[in-house]
Amino acid sequence: MAYSVEWLGNRVRMLDQSMLPDEEHYDELTDSDDVADAIRTMRVRGAPAIGVAAAYGAALAGLQAANLEPALRVPHVEQAIEVLAQTRPTAVNLFAALERMRAAVRRSSPDGLAQALIAEARLIHDEELAASAAISTYGASLIPPNATVLTHCNAGMIATASHGTALGAIVEAHRQRRVARVIATETRPLLQGARLTIWELVKEGVPATLITDSMVCHVMRTMRIDCVMVGADRIAANGDVANKIGTGGIALLARAHRVPFYVAAPTSTVDLSVRSGDSITIEQRSPDEVTSFAGRRVAARGSDVLNPAFDVTPHRYVSAIVTERGIISAPYTRRLRECAGRAGERRK
Amino acid sequence: MAYSVEWLGNRVRMLDQSMLPDEEHYDELTDSDDVADAIRTMRVRGAPAIGVAAAYGAALAGLQAANLEPALRVPHVEQAIEVLAQTRPTAVNLFAALERMRAAVRRSSPDGLAQALIAEARLIHDEELAASAAISTYGASLIPPNATVLTHCNAGMIATASHGTALGAIVEAHRQRRVARVIATETRPLLQGARLTIWELVKEGVPATLITDSMVCHVMRTMRIDCVMVGADRIAANGDVANKIGTGGIALLARAHRVPFYVAAPTSTVDLSVRSGDSITIEQRSPDEVTSFAGRRVAARGSDVLNPAFDVTPHRYVSAIVTERGIISAPYTRRLRECAGRAGERRK
Repeated sequence: MAYSVEWLGNRVRMLDQSMLPDEEHYDELTDSDDVADAIRTMRVRGAPAIGVAAAYGAALAGLQAANLEPALRVPHVEQAIEVLAQTRPTAVNLFAALERMRAAVRRSSPDGLAQALIAEARLIHDEELAASAAISTYGASLIPPNATVLTHCNAGMIATASHGTALGAIVEAHRQRRVARVIATETRPLLQGARLTIWELVKEGVPATLITDSMVCHVMRTMRIDCVMVGADRIAANGDVANKIGTGGIALLARAHRVPFYVAAPTSTVDLSVRSGDSITIEQRSPDEVTSFAGRRVAARGSDVLNPAFDVTPHRYVSAIVTERGIISAPYTRRLRECAGRAGERRK
Repeated sequence: MAYSVEWLGNRVRMLDQSMLPDEEHYDELTDSDDVADAIRTMRVRGAPAIGVAAAYGAALAGLQAANLEPALRVPHVEQAIEVLAQTRPTAVNLFAALERMRAAVRRSSPDGLAQALIAEARLIHDEELAASAAISTYGASLIPPNATVLTHCNAGMIATASHGTALGAIVEAHRQRRVARVIATETRPLLQGARLTIWELVKEGVPATLITDSMVCHVMRTMRIDCVMVGADRIAANGDVANKIGTGGIALLARAHRVPFYVAAPTSTVDLSVRSGDSITIEQRSPDEVTSFAGRRVAARGSDVLNPAFDVTPHRYVSAIVTERGIISAPYTRRLRECAGRAGERRK
């Protein structure tokens, strides 16, 4: 199967995640503004995937700029990067990728701009591929034989432009014949679990069970769950994890039921500039996502609606963080600095 | 506003809860089998409401039986009661109400059967009305000034054929100007919170905020929530509470965030014959409720689906149980026996 985001020489091909599972539709985009729009409307989603998509968006801006006078090229790309940076506020991979694209602009001559941007975007993508492969291997090692694993939202192939992080680890453990079953929450409001995770698991032949988000406690009380494995949109320096809304509650329920709670994410998700989860900007999305489904109003009218896209899981509920550089456990502040700090230096 | 279930002399009028909030439609039923069908398909739902509806269903069977030969009347009613008892397994109010209808059959002469059944059903309804009024008063006293209250599912007017239990208490506290805001979970899969609770709160002029079930932890971490107030479908002798799926997780999250967790329910919801929540039958409903919405498939195909309609909240997470006979706190085993035992005797 194709990756959810791919570079085709002069355009980017992206799986339209909003149309799954009804249709496996791919868009081919040549305009960086269209990439920004796809990120904003969540046709492409998942922290690693939007980082890669944004990098390719900047590369498209480089190709567009090649048709402009030399003096206008850098401003054009910088403007495009700014638009891409305004799409979504929480996943740090987006900003990390765009910072690297800005650095590539600074390093490049006007004539070589497009090629430099394409090369850097492909490097970012290749690094995500390598990271997710390593994360899958490390993460799988945490999953015991005959395991039932619970996951939330979608941290799979389509969220990462690669093999996946949390779901990559689960699929890898399944290949090693250690996964008996995956419990996937539907993940309201946009149903990434029901639409995307179940779709991926069925494709991979992993026995999967769909539940509503409200069933997690009941399932933990009445079944044996061996671990929870989820992705992350941003990890603060102290190990607090911002991830899809609902993750924090699952972590707390896991602790109460003595179920290990693992977060799988590349070091590009770690933001050492943010001390704790309290300082992570939580995106508030449109009330329509909660009150309507498929264009049909489901909620009674006249109330307020909250729609935070993410929540913060305090690091004390995180049993381990699986990165491409190994499995990290508490104390997170020191170990994340060692691990992600090195990754940061490597990139410079 | 009319009650959700009402007796009109020779027929029962019921609000079709499945059509809310789009349409406030009432059905008038004359056949007890139609009442059973309405309970099974959740056109009428809420533990107290289905108890009252089932009682009226038995009364309709009494009216139907009046057209039969005297020897066939009691068997006809007993058969109808059996059908009503098979509709849903968890809410004990259904069985308590039907047990009283069976006792009315035994007490009655064949000629007076219909009137005896109507009288008993109306008594059950009147008792629920009185109970919910008392519960509203007691429950409101637990709500502090300027309170933000979180509720799950719908324990309001339409769930109870009366003023409501948990929502009755909230509305009463609002009349006393103590409620700043109610946070209502949407309550997947059937969205009773989004469709019914928000509808009732808006009608009553109570400021309401809708959230998905997955947002409870985030809301408790980032806002001040003064208490949780929910209903119950069955309360075991030890105080374990079966209520809408998701309740158990909210109770655990409430404990972790030091938010009082209150259950409001009439003593007809207490089942002293069940020692703990582990012995309560949890209804498993159709997977379609989870995988489809309004006839449209939303989940990817190929997975298993769980759809337990209820979960059990262990009594240690319950700060208090509000009944029509007062507010009960731990130790629940003794206090529920004193309180509900007396109520049980009263009924004999």
